[in-house]
Amino acid sequence: MEKKRKELHILAFDADDTLWDNEIFFREVEEKFGAMLENYLPVHSAHRALLKTEIDNIAIYGYGIKAFMLSMVETAIQISDYTLPSKVIDDIIILGKEMLDKPVTLLPDAEEVLRELSGKYKLVVATKGDLLDQERKLKKSGLMPYFHHIEIMTEKAESDYQKLIKHLDIPAGQFLMVGNSLKSDIRPVLNIGGHGIHIPYHTTWVYEAIDTGICHENFHQVGRLSDLLNLL
Amino acid sequence: MEKKRKELHILAFDADDTLWDNEIFFREVEEKFGAMLENYLPVHSAHRALLKTEIDNIAIYGYGIKAFMLSMVETAIQISDYTLPSKVIDDIIILGKEMLDKPVTLLPDAEEVLRELSGKYKLVVATKGDLLDQERKLKKSGLMPYFHHIEIMTEKAESDYQKLIKHLDIPAGQFLMVGNSLKSDIRPVLNIGGHGIHIPYHTTWVYEAIDTGICHENFHQVGRLSDLLNLL
Repeated sequence: MEKKRKELHILAFDADDTLWDNEIFFREVEEKFGAMLENYLPVHSAHRALLKTEIDNIAIYGYGIKAFMLSMVETAIQISDYTLPSKVIDDIIILGKEMLDKPVTLLPDAEEVLRELSGKYKLVVATKGDLLDQERKLKKSGLMPYFHHIEIMTEKAESDYQKLIKHLDIPAGQFLMVGNSLKSDIRPVLNIGGHGIHIPYHTTWVYEAIDTGICHENFHQVGRLSDLLNLL
Repeated sequence: MEKKRKELHILAFDADDTLWDNEIFFREVEEKFGAMLENYLPVHSAHRALLKTEIDNIAIYGYGIKAFMLSMVETAIQISDYTLPSKVIDDIIILGKEMLDKPVTLLPDAEEVLRELSGKYKLVVATKGDLLDQERKLKKSGLMPYFHHIEIMTEKAESDYQKLIKHLDIPAGQFLMVGNSLKSDIRPVLNIGGHGIHIPYHTTWVYEAIDTGICHENFHQVGRLSDLLNLL
């Protein structure tokens, strides 16, 4: 890493499950969703049906809590074969509104790590999801002052990173992405010539999971945010 | 305008109802929504209840079709006093998905006007709403090549325009905003020292309507996009 450290100019951070908890709230709501529909279907089947609806709807809804809410409503109606009491749908909407209003819980050492790295590199946030919701979480997090630029992307494919790097006006070799998703944060960045550091989170959405390891000279994996300070 | 024309550097365009039709699709769906609930409430009361829910939810949902869908579901359940058949909710979701999939209809002369102006000024889009939906409309519109920069904002208040102008690295006096909403596109821009050209659209969402006229040296109102070519 010694040689690379000198080349690096911009560190981009994923936000959800990299800087603060996120997926865990989706898991909690999925559990409640399954319990609400137990009269119609076993919990694990309800989860599977919801996941299918979510993935089918990504192209039209994108990511984020509002998309998740709409997919829960749609799935619940289907599971019940159109017999669902509307009170249950109202409860789903209440669950979603609670998610949108959650406080932001930073992952350990997030602020200290960003403070230290912001003295050496230009830091940016590169996250996908809902614009309003991500901006709200950033504000609540108190981490805004450490970031030069916030990029909220509709997708995290190679072409999206290429656009970001062009916008930042640097060659890909000076760009490093830190995130919890190999699929969204690491692989596309390595493929276009950038660097990636993977910090696994204890829970990964099935849709984000890829089961093959990555072996690449620009790739590192660490256990927690504070390990970045030894690497960079 | 002659003197000002020389000062102007960046023209920012609102998108919905300035470059393409938008509000009209919301009106159509509101009509269908009212008709679906006629068993519970007269149509105009259903519209009023929906508007109230939408405004109450702006802080948590923001703008855009997904927010509108969730507000329709919530309002319909309330109107029915929790007796609504879930088939009706499914129909609401189908209506929303159709909105998200609508083709983009450009307003008259939009492409010609942008082509001509893009030779003289740097053009940007400044729009609020849902990130994915706005990007999709821009792609479908075929207008992307004329714009240097796309700004999708969560709100269009003075502070949001100040951020945009800072990001564009110009003084406010070199910035002109073109749009159909006095409240969102014109007034905040005039207040921070920029210029505004108002092009009314035949329908304005009640929430965007302001009833006082504007009298300001940096302000013009025109009837249609092609009038810009005489002014600028």
